[in-house]
Amino acid sequence: MTENFIGIDFGGTNIKIGCFSADLKLLWKTSIPTDAHMGPAVVIDRMVDTIKSMATNSKVPLATIKAIGIGSPGPAYYSQGILIRCANLPKFTDVPISKMLKKKLGKPVVLENDANAACYGEFVAGQGKNIKNMVFFTLGTGIGSGIISDGKLLRGSGDNAAELGHTIVNVNGRLCGCGQRGCAEAYASASNTARRATEVIEAGAKSSLKAILEKNGQITSKDVYEHLAKGDQLAKKITDETAEVLAVLCVNALHGTEPEKIVFAGGMIAAGKPLLNRITYYFKQHIWKIKQEDSVEICFATLGEDAGIIGAAALAREL
Amino acid sequence: MTENFIGIDFGGTNIKIGCFSADLKLLWKTSIPTDAHMGPAVVIDRMVDTIKSMATNSKVPLATIKAIGIGSPGPAYYSQGILIRCANLPKFTDVPISKMLKKKLGKPVVLENDANAACYGEFVAGQGKNIKNMVFFTLGTGIGSGIISDGKLLRGSGDNAAELGHTIVNVNGRLCGCGQRGCAEAYASASNTARRATEVIEAGAKSSLKAILEKNGQITSKDVYEHLAKGDQLAKKITDETAEVLAVLCVNALHGTEPEKIVFAGGMIAAGKPLLNRITYYFKQHIWKIKQEDSVEICFATLGEDAGIIGAAALAREL
Repeated sequence: MTENFIGIDFGGTNIKIGCFSADLKLLWKTSIPTDAHMGPAVVIDRMVDTIKSMATNSKVPLATIKAIGIGSPGPAYYSQGILIRCANLPKFTDVPISKMLKKKLGKPVVLENDANAACYGEFVAGQGKNIKNMVFFTLGTGIGSGIISDGKLLRGSGDNAAELGHTIVNVNGRLCGCGQRGCAEAYASASNTARRATEVIEAGAKSSLKAILEKNGQITSKDVYEHLAKGDQLAKKITDETAEVLAVLCVNALHGTEPEKIVFAGGMIAAGKPLLNRITYYFKQHIWKIKQEDSVEICFATLGEDAGIIGAAALAREL
Repeated sequence: MTENFIGIDFGGTNIKIGCFSADLKLLWKTSIPTDAHMGPAVVIDRMVDTIKSMATNSKVPLATIKAIGIGSPGPAYYSQGILIRCANLPKFTDVPISKMLKKKLGKPVVLENDANAACYGEFVAGQGKNIKNMVFFTLGTGIGSGIISDGKLLRGSGDNAAELGHTIVNVNGRLCGCGQRGCAEAYASASNTARRATEVIEAGAKSSLKAILEKNGQITSKDVYEHLAKGDQLAKKITDETAEVLAVLCVNALHGTEPEKIVFAGGMIAAGKPLLNRITYYFKQHIWKIKQEDSVEICFATLGEDAGIIGAAALAREL
């Protein structure tokens, strides 16, 4: 019998749902607003209804769905399928989401960290094809990450491994949202890249970004790399600082789990080659010289926003 | 039939050899000078002769030895059993040590990084009993490390994972022997702890260590923690700086592979509780506050110098 799998990317704003064949071909996908304020029971019912109506309207009967995977922000007891709480999901406190979905749909459910799910998607269907070790960073509000070691997601003793955005690259450095000082995320996430630009402009630095700040009341990372493309020197300096910290993350990732590839994803990779080239440049500057390190490839993800649903479906396939 | 295993700790100064039962009870051990200048053929013959004569003189016949494990400094093609070269082993360039030993003794041989072997020893017979995830640091001339993930040594794509001493904790910080800037090792290895003390005393700082420097022409890490015990304020400051960097390594290790235990080994742990307490203190200072991290245990290794031979024998047992 045909076996298909559903992958869910459970975000603070939207819930993306995809249905995949056993070889991870996309059969259908859809997206609904999360509306987390309506509470877990309602939100989960809407997910179930969406899956059922998609199954009815597509040529993929519900009976062919073998299992369901969900990628969700933490903290969570992932292996137990319980969301503890999440800044972007008010009212979702101690929600046994896997159990609830399983009860409604009668299928096995696996819960995974959202960055891990996207990492796994990119591993099985994107940059990770034909390799066994990969490190994945997604540059957004924070820096999410995932580690593939010997072909498997590295989960750690309590399912909270691979928080590499919160590794400290400057002892007693810049304050991070997590409360630590000197985290890579405090410098090089998309949000903090934009924040650093804002700070120096507010302190009097000259830049074409100043007009943006005055007009919009804020600067985004997209503004930074658009003004970089236009030749703004401050945008170049800010991008360089981001690239240097990301390069140091690459050095540390290599000395940690020694991946074949280090893959960057998230909105900020729209900055394109100018960003990737600077990461690669600083990697060569910072990496040790006692041994040539030319085998690791630093690259951008290829799956875009679908990585999360593909990865979640791939994890469901392993149940 | 009884099956026994030999573990070899192949160092620049000495070669330690131990014979273990299948449940890793020590049956005999010995140590010979490495005399690396005599070249690989001679050194390996001496290892073989030592094993044969120990087998003859002990109640453990050579026929009961099922396999041999070797821990050695790198860089090496460990999975191929070839030493590439090593600063402390002149004349050992591209030496197929596993093949050579196998030919002479007729037993399977496995080669592993020396820090990984010691890590594995501590994992199977020391602090790692009853856990599945561990990070291990050995504080000597450098900072060696090993990672146990889900019960196994994490080796990476080219057998050179777990070089955590060379993770960068200060972008563009202190120069490390490896050529990188800001490595943890550049601050907190035993040698660099002593070096930092020397530097500040030479720059005019007051300390009871000054007399040691004048008398011996150098300061060792042992001098530092002995003078710490006597209440010297500079020794306290230097130890604190070491402890803070080691604590940041612990934070990064937790956010990397999320071990149940982080274990420190090597000569410098003779500094005892005063060092361990300061590492724990700084860990609590630096770790994030968004999630309570009270499950990870930071501790000292228990096997001492035998960790390497036990780990190598345990790896041989898995052949």
